[in-house]
This record gives sequence, C-alpha cells and structure tokens, in this order.
Amino acid sequence: MRRCVLLGRLRFVTTIVAVDCMGGDFGPSVTVPACLEVLNRHEWLRVLLVGHQDVLGHVVHPRAEVVHAEEVVAMDDPVEVAMRHKKRSSMRVAIEQVKEGRAQVALSAGNTGALMAIARYVLKMLDGIERPAIAYPLPNVKGGATTVLDLGANVDCTERHLLQFAVLGSALDMALKSRDKPTVGLLNVGSEAIKGSDTIKRAAELLREAGERSLIHYYGNVEGNDIFKGTTDIVVCDGFVGNVTLKATEGLASMISSLLKQEFSRNALTKLAGLAAMPVLNAFKAKVDHRRHNGAALLGLRGLVFKSHGSADQMAFEHALSKAADAAQNQLMQKIESRVQQAALLF
Amino acid sequence: MRRCVLLGRLRFVTTIVAVDCMGGDFGPSVTVPACLEVLNRHEWLRVLLVGHQDVLGHVVHPRAEVVHAEEVVAMDDPVEVAMRHKKRSSMRVAIEQVKEGRAQVALSAGNTGALMAIARYVLKMLDGIERPAIAYPLPNVKGGATTVLDLGANVDCTERHLLQFAVLGSALDMALKSRDKPTVGLLNVGSEAIKGSDTIKRAAELLREAGERSLIHYYGNVEGNDIFKGTTDIVVCDGFVGNVTLKATEGLASMISSLLKQEFSRNALTKLAGLAAMPVLNAFKAKVDHRRHNGAALLGLRGLVFKSHGSADQMAFEHALSKAADAAQNQLMQKIESRVQQAALLF
Repeated sequence: MRRCVLLGRLRFVTTIVAVDCMGGDFGPSVTVPACLEVLNRHEWLRVLLVGHQDVLGHVVHPRAEVVHAEEVVAMDDPVEVAMRHKKRSSMRVAIEQVKEGRAQVALSAGNTGALMAIARYVLKMLDGIERPAIAYPLPNVKGGATTVLDLGANVDCTERHLLQFAVLGSALDMALKSRDKPTVGLLNVGSEAIKGSDTIKRAAELLREAGERSLIHYYGNVEGNDIFKGTTDIVVCDGFVGNVTLKATEGLASMISSLLKQEFSRNALTKLAGLAAMPVLNAFKAKVDHRRHNGAALLGLRGLVFKSHGSADQMAFEHALSKAADAAQNQLMQKIESRVQQAALLF
Repeated sequence: MRRCVLLGRLRFVTTIVAVDCMGGDFGPSVTVPACLEVLNRHEWLRVLLVGHQDVLGHVVHPRAEVVHAEEVVAMDDPVEVAMRHKKRSSMRVAIEQVKEGRAQVALSAGNTGALMAIARYVLKMLDGIERPAIAYPLPNVKGGATTVLDLGANVDCTERHLLQFAVLGSALDMALKSRDKPTVGLLNVGSEAIKGSDTIKRAAELLREAGERSLIHYYGNVEGNDIFKGTTDIVVCDGFVGNVTLKATEGLASMISSLLKQEFSRNALTKLAGLAAMPVLNAFKAKVDHRRHNGAALLGLRGLVFKSHGSADQMAFEHALSKAADAAQNQLMQKIESRVQQAALLF
C-alpha cells in the first residue's frame, strides 16, 4: 500500500490520513476545503475523507477517496452513546482505517472524550503503556512550542504513568521537531514548604533513573511558567493539572485580547492609534496564534490518532492535518514502539 | 488598644499592621517608603515597622513605631532554618505582634514556605480548619478579580479541605469586596471522559450540601478559563493545581508582554507605531498590572497574615499593605470565625 514519490532529491513514502470530515463545530464546511488545500501542498499525501457519501460525494481530488460512514458523533454526545450506539460514526470508521492498515493516522475534530474512548477500544493500548495521553504543544517565548502531556485523558496518575508520558512525548518530539534529544521536565510546584506530592516525588526519582539510562533526556522539575519559557522541550503532568493549565492559559489569552481590543476602540484617537499599530499587532497575533499549533496527539495506542480543536477554522484544521501527516511520514509509530520497548524495564 | 478616628461622617477604628520590613527581594528600600505612603493615605492606620533598629531607626512618622528584630529570613532559607535558627527574625516578630494582640494583621514579602510555617506555628489553626490556604486574586475580564485558593500551601487535599477553603474564601471576599453572597466555583476539568477525580466528585457533593444550607453560595464546577472570565467570585482547588495555574498564567503574561515589546521594537516604523499606541498600551498595561492585585491572604489561622510578592516594588507593596489593612478594618477575622463556626457541622 505504501508508495514512493520522488520530489527533487528527496524521497517520500506516500502517507495516508483518514480524516473524520463530520467532526468538530463546523464539520465538512471546514474539514473538506482544509483537506484539499493540504493535499495540494504535499504530493506524498493521500486522504480518506470519512463521512456521509451524500455530503462528501461531490469532492473530487486524485489523491482523495470518500469512505462512507452514516453516523456522526455530536460534540455533546456522552461517551457511551458514541461508543455503543454509533458504531458506524465517521469518527469510529476513521480510526478503523488505521486499525485495518488502510491509513497510517486518523484525524478528528470531534468530542475528545468519545475520540479517546473509541481510539482506545478500537486500537488498544501498546504493550507496556497503561494509559493513553493527550499531548499538545503550547507556544513558548523562544518561538517554538513546548509539548505538554497529559492534557486531560487521565485525572489520577501514578509515577509510572508520568514516566510513560515522558517516553511517549520524547518520541513525538523526535518525529515532529526532528530533535535528537528532546528534554523532559516534570511539572511541580515551587514553594519550598511543599515541593510536590508523594507521587511527584516518586516520579522525579523514576524519571531521573530513566535519564541516567539514556531512555529519556531528563531535565528535572519545572514550574508552570517554564512551559512558556520553553525551558524544556516536553513537560509531563497528570491530566487534571494539564487540562486546568491549558484552559486557564486560554482564558488569560482571550482576556488579554479582549482588553486590548477594548482599549483600542475607546475613542477616535485610540482607534487611530490602533490603525497605526495594526501591522505590528497583526505580526504579534500571528506569533501567538494558537491555530498554528493546532493538533494534539493521542499517544500510547497501537496506532496514530490526532485531535483537532473542535472550533478549528480551515487554517487551524490544515495545521492539524499537516501535523498528523508529518507524524506518520516521520514514522512516529515506529519511534514510539522502539522507545517504549527500550524503556519497558522501568515501567 | 483600638481607637477611633472620625473622618467626615465615617467612623474608623484604628487598625494596626505589623510589617516585616526586612522581607522580600528589596527589603526596607521598598517596604519603608510604601508604609509611609499608605500611612499618609489612611488616618486610621498605624504601622509597626518590624526589623533591625539600626536600619529602621531613622524612620519618623507619628503613626509608625519600630519593633526591633535582629534576624532576617532570607528568600532562600529552608523552612527549618527560618523556624529553628532564626527565632528573632523580622518575619516571626511581625507575626508575634498579631499573636500578642499588638497588631490586627501581619504583612511580609518574605519566603512563602517560611511565612506559612511560622504563621502556623505561632498563631495555630482555627478550630475546624485542618490546613491553611493561600488565597490570591487573579484579574478577570469583568474588571474585577477572582479569588483563587489554595495557591500552594497544600499539595494533597481532601474534599473537606476544599470545603474549608470555600468557607474561608467566602469570608475573605465578604471583607475585601463587600460582597454579600460571593459565589464559589470548584475547579474541575471539562473533558467528558474524566470529569474529575474521586476527591473532586466528593468535594462537589459537599459543596452542594453547604450551598443548600446557605453556608456558601455554590455555583458548581468551573474550568481553568472561568478564572479569567470571572464566572464566580471564588475558585477553590488544591494547592498543586493552584500553584501550577498561577505560575503558568504568569509565564504566559510575561511571554505576551515580551513578544509585544519585540514586535514594536523591530524597526523605525514599528517603533513609531509603538509611540502612537503608547497611551493605549499603557492603559491596557494598567488594567492587567498584577501589582494592583498584590497581597495574598494566609487563611485558616487564628490571626491575619498577608503575603506580598517577593519581587514587589513600592507600588505593589503599597497595594498589599492597603489590602491587609482593609481586611483588618473590615473585620476579616471575625467574619472568618463566624462562618467557620456555622459551617463546622460539615467539616
């Protein structure tokens, strides 16, 4: 099934992405044009457009193919509805393409809980990994992004889970950022009185040992602000802390943006100032634009699944698709398997 | 000891604040001018300047008095050094002023771990409260501030601790914001798959019950972004999550500010744009200036202690001092005692 494309001196293996075209707040009106745009950018990409034939039947592209799925998981569907009553959902059918070897990676902007549950059920966990993790890049002041995991798949984590996240995150960074030795930080608190819970203390021990055996490149404890400083390439934490942190920083960013707008639209003079500052503010906005980082990886499964933000617009969905395709192209699954195998003695 | 001052038609009881003048990154060079400034603003305020006589002896103000303390807790002193080997530190002597009834509240910009440990040792916990909490206001888009606690005193919390934080936070908001019925949110995660750990689920039950008995005004679950939306007046969480969230949002804010600066200083044209936008950007900066919110309350003790940010400049320290004084003036301690007593049946 994998074919090669020669582009100049570089040789690319064809990568096939199964896209859940019905998921997300906007469904096919966003996902289909995004797929066509990214297809035109990469000769080595093929896309399976998963969704209802009636909706997707008109899409024509030499490297796109419609895979029919009659049901859709709604953004507010409880997990059990998505799992038990919608066995022919576009989300599930997209993941099945990976399971059955027809695609190397699946992408969906649908409801996270359902996606995680279905992915886990259909693909199963990798040997040695107990829990899947959601890994997401947050922009840092160095101009890059810090990979944070877990961002919400697990509320209670043991030290072994945190070590597994460190190994999974390292493989992801090696595949997506071409980093040879991505550094790992353990998210902890700063106040002397309480340096971490018992789990965190044991996790620090385990990560240090993994570092000494060169299974990961362990930096040590980091604090919340280190995420945005880019102190380490990867930050590991449990899903509760990760999710709250992600949401809080999204909340702060949106507060700052709305206060800035408010100040610039106060009166004629401030509006004029806003006009003068517009190009600079736009350049700034582009730098912190979270759409550029869209695409979270669901790690720890026997197959690759990526998750786009539910409210992604076309540009954001394109980024998620490119990232999912890059991950497969750069053999993320093989990298994960080999690193998990090496580190298994510590799990 | 308490005297009354008549200002117009309002009658103020004299409030005495014991200020650790040696604490913080800048010590007396910041704390002393801040004390004098705030003293001049409030006729009803008296300040005990706690620190070395040689350093503070020159300070003259009719409502200030130097209390000698020969030692200083350094910002990087381990808690046990501060506790056992510096029994005459300015931090400890300031707290002892509260214990002995010579002041209604103590304020320090010194090391948080040491302050918490000494405050707990000297003042003891209130009956019914198992753990002290650090409460800090984070600015919200409504133009006010959301009181978040705990921000780092406790890494592992039970549901009972979270209920106690809710009661303490409510008393704080009633004293400082003059809110009759401050609303309380429980910080939780949004993803359906995992809605909270067992502790969080039990805490939600307990808070709901307290709400039904009108002991607090319980809103329900909130997510990280609700802090900055100002969905509720108060947000309760364990100290690990609170501390990471606080640090992460500080990190993001500082990244945004440095990227904005970078963009505006890129070339002559962008610098000119920056000049035009300066008044607007300054107005914006003032709105999100964390110095305006400086001053965290250490709650749950048999006496009032406030903590200023260690790196506070004069303006920031003035805000913390005003807040500590206001809290005492508005009888925070009495409000806490009465609410804790009412709610004790659920602890």
